[in-house]
Amino acid sequence: MPRRAAGGLSGGMRTQVAIIGAGPAGLLLSHLLAQGGVDSVVLETRSQEYVASRIRAGILEQSSVDLLTEVGLGDRLRAEGHEHRGIYLNFAGERHHLDFVDLAGRTVWVYGQTEVQKDLVAAGTADARYEVTDVQLHDVESDRPYVTYLDAGGAAQRLDADVIAGCDGSFGPSRQAVPAEHFERTYPYSWLGILADVAPSTDELIYAWHANGFALHSMRSPTVSRLYLQVPNGTDPASWPDERIWDELAVRLGHGQDGWKLTPGPITEKSVLPMRSYVQTPMRHGRLFLAGDAAHIVPPTGAKGLNLAIADVSLLSTALVALLNRRDPALADAYSDDALRRVWRCTHFSWWMTTMLHTSGDPFDAQLQLSQLRWVTTSNAGATGLAENYAGLPIGF
Amino acid sequence: MPRRAAGGLSGGMRTQVAIIGAGPAGLLLSHLLAQGGVDSVVLETRSQEYVASRIRAGILEQSSVDLLTEVGLGDRLRAEGHEHRGIYLNFAGERHHLDFVDLAGRTVWVYGQTEVQKDLVAAGTADARYEVTDVQLHDVESDRPYVTYLDAGGAAQRLDADVIAGCDGSFGPSRQAVPAEHFERTYPYSWLGILADVAPSTDELIYAWHANGFALHSMRSPTVSRLYLQVPNGTDPASWPDERIWDELAVRLGHGQDGWKLTPGPITEKSVLPMRSYVQTPMRHGRLFLAGDAAHIVPPTGAKGLNLAIADVSLLSTALVALLNRRDPALADAYSDDALRRVWRCTHFSWWMTTMLHTSGDPFDAQLQLSQLRWVTTSNAGATGLAENYAGLPIGF
Repeated sequence: MPRRAAGGLSGGMRTQVAIIGAGPAGLLLSHLLAQGGVDSVVLETRSQEYVASRIRAGILEQSSVDLLTEVGLGDRLRAEGHEHRGIYLNFAGERHHLDFVDLAGRTVWVYGQTEVQKDLVAAGTADARYEVTDVQLHDVESDRPYVTYLDAGGAAQRLDADVIAGCDGSFGPSRQAVPAEHFERTYPYSWLGILADVAPSTDELIYAWHANGFALHSMRSPTVSRLYLQVPNGTDPASWPDERIWDELAVRLGHGQDGWKLTPGPITEKSVLPMRSYVQTPMRHGRLFLAGDAAHIVPPTGAKGLNLAIADVSLLSTALVALLNRRDPALADAYSDDALRRVWRCTHFSWWMTTMLHTSGDPFDAQLQLSQLRWVTTSNAGATGLAENYAGLPIGF
Repeated sequence: MPRRAAGGLSGGMRTQVAIIGAGPAGLLLSHLLAQGGVDSVVLETRSQEYVASRIRAGILEQSSVDLLTEVGLGDRLRAEGHEHRGIYLNFAGERHHLDFVDLAGRTVWVYGQTEVQKDLVAAGTADARYEVTDVQLHDVESDRPYVTYLDAGGAAQRLDADVIAGCDGSFGPSRQAVPAEHFERTYPYSWLGILADVAPSTDELIYAWHANGFALHSMRSPTVSRLYLQVPNGTDPASWPDERIWDELAVRLGHGQDGWKLTPGPITEKSVLPMRSYVQTPMRHGRLFLAGDAAHIVPPTGAKGLNLAIADVSLLSTALVALLNRRDPALADAYSDDALRRVWRCTHFSWWMTTMLHTSGDPFDAQLQLSQLRWVTTSNAGATGLAENYAGLPIGF
């Protein structure tokens, strides 16, 4: 619970950790800190309803599931989520299954980010202030950083803290407050993503390489399918009527191949997602620590975005509990390097999956992709390499 | 031995297989055919001395060594060649050993292409005609193909054959005679290669990633070192005096790192090698079969060029013995597809090794490379993937 700052400015509050952003990274961090006896306040510019309804990632690594379970957030996940043993790779008219349990001893879970967000809100741990504006970070290089903002009613507020955690994504103020190096890659293609009210035509995700471009058959539940098509950057979703989408998904995913059928259904959401890789380093500046999308963005092909955010806040909460409640700075000082090891592993893997599966228009690239896919589906080392990266390494590896 | 063509043109000869090119692919093919009871004549535009002295590849895969041994060409190789258990990867100031025996159950051998060539010449199996000119292939789509050329004395000759084997490299006439699709990639860097009369400073090859560019410490014998530096395309070797070469090799290979020293010595050869990937498909047109560099080129990073040529002629000789002596066309009909499986695997691997180790100038690429190198040197799957590709798959996998 926040405490009034003793002798602070009128209206000022004090907390141990001021968290910017109430997405899954910010709310989970607040939850983990509370369990470690560290209090926090979460500031969010959007409304609670908006944050809860954003459609994002849908795959949780084993280590993410384990962490959520350990901290009391796994009940609905385990009841309503779906554990998958692996994925399918489809190319050259063949479907191959990679079994992550056999290859790497781990599974993944289908459970949407919107559901994780609901569980975090339902837990009620975080003291979150929504619809704030003009969030500004101050004195992050000092021992007395603070945040100023206008609350939902428009009143100026000041939040003093020992530490600020930037969980406010690519476009929030936290990233800008770190004078850091950044590494970036844009890709010459986007995803046209749809949600459809139809049972998935597959038990596990299908990643498809096709001369026309990449396609992915994912799902959200036994009655909701999530599918994607590689499209050129700048594509207008209106240029893809529903029938064209289903026709192209059928072609790329292998409808008719060995009797498999793609069942179409009503499309309830349609959007075009650009693809980008971005890493900011270091992930700390003075008393400001970045976590999740505020520090790094991956293209969605490897399903790493949410899992990386969870791994970040797991490391960060442990580091901040040690720093603030035991005056032990070792983990906080190591946080950026520790987090970046996983960030770069996942950034490389996401780039690798993306460039292996999306057509570039270069015929030599296409042959390299097919050769690599053949190797991944026939060599135990190749398959294990994909499996251990996709299913994810233990947090703190 | 060649036979005079019954009723042929004056000066005409007949053989079962007309082989264009007396490099290792052509001479080994002639040797393997002879062992299968098929006769051949080899035509070569260069002099025997020129072919024998060309400096080329120096690493043989286990399967290449096994094949050469089986056909009686392994005595000197096993006496004078050097078996290596693996390679070193050097990056970020660390040296890591990959042990191919532990990882993939196979070794590689250091034995120069010039030595293989000498052994083939010494075997004396091939009926080879050197310094011929104006080689032209005729009627390759018919059952009666033939080759015309001018012999070393300038006299017009005609060689009739059942089959023509194009082993004449990238610039020979065979590749042009196949109306095929080709796939190609050039790279924005070259290798500056040197031979030096100095004992290698390492027991096994060192592949080094460095911010300045790739470097490789290879060797030819206990007294001859072979080293390479990544340089921009179009580099003039004269812009690299010996001292500059040794200084830069020392920096990139990690001189001083954990007490390791690079010992310089007299440089006896210096040249700049461009890097290219090229695959022609199919590798057969009618009665013309391509093997080795005539069909494909790989950048030297994966040490695959000579090994691919050996694998090609192994498949091709078996196919031609069946076709010509048993009238069984099955293997000949399958040759192109069978050979191309390995060609694409090696083309992908060579591209992968090349792009993992050569700096492009893009900082994001550099971080991806370092992340991949860390994965390859810490994940068993990553290390095994490199090892099984480098040490090579069995012929006919």
